[in-house]
Amino acid sequence: MFTHDYFMKMALQEAEKAMEKDEVPIGCIIVSNDRIIAKSHNLTETLNDVTAHAEMQAITSAANFLGGKYLQNCTLYVTLEPCVMCSGALAWSQITKVVIGARDEHRGFINKGLSLHPKTEIVTGILENECSAIIKDFFKNRR
Amino acid sequence: MFTHDYFMKMALQEAEKAMEKDEVPIGCIIVSNDRIIAKSHNLTETLNDVTAHAEMQAITSAANFLGGKYLQNCTLYVTLEPCVMCSGALAWSQITKVVIGARDEHRGFINKGLSLHPKTEIVTGILENECSAIIKDFFKNRR
Repeated sequence: MFTHDYFMKMALQEAEKAMEKDEVPIGCIIVSNDRIIAKSHNLTETLNDVTAHAEMQAITSAANFLGGKYLQNCTLYVTLEPCVMCSGALAWSQITKVVIGARDEHRGFINKGLSLHPKTEIVTGILENECSAIIKDFFKNRR
Repeated sequence: MFTHDYFMKMALQEAEKAMEKDEVPIGCIIVSNDRIIAKSHNLTETLNDVTAHAEMQAITSAANFLGGKYLQNCTLYVTLEPCVMCSGALAWSQITKVVIGARDEHRGFINKGLSLHPKTEIVTGILENECSAIIKDFFKNRR
């Protein structure tokens, strides 16, 4: 039951919440021992704050939940590949695993040559089509 | 009066506040039209949050003050070269100028090959010795 697809669907539900607020639809969740300990979506427009990406909020929430700043035994599921800022935050968090839906060739950390913490496992391509479609639909409808 | 040295001294005062809390002593301020609109220091230990770097807090504060997420006509003064996370946040903010005290060869964004927003001017080496000394003293005293 607790597959990567299962949890990425939860992240997609967060992205849909962002869409409803006219935010670029990106969502994420953080899971620890098969339990969701944080969920969030992009709120940069709502909060007028470039740092309010889904991942940044989730990292802070999860650390509050755990009572410690290192996200050991945690997996982040995010619908779009993290940007430079979020990859830097994930690196500091030493999170155990990062599962990515759609790639972001231009803004994502991978093509910038950046890496996360050496012990962080990275998985890509989970529900890639759905995660990509929600972003593409958003920008198509804005034009 | 309103020189780079003048404002970097303010950032150093913020770093000293971090030091008093046993935080890695890094401080920053954001100035707009010669007025300080945000000041902050590293609070990662106090808040148990890897995202609580001085720059991240200052970007959020300045955007709240300005009522908009882009930091136009703003200059950030920071005692230590920003890390990957903070450089990513600064890039999103499109801040006008970033003035750096000490370089961070290992963790700083410059040696990672990263850049800020194309229109952001970067100045380095302001009160470099003082900014470097406060960090070195901190780690020496911890050993």
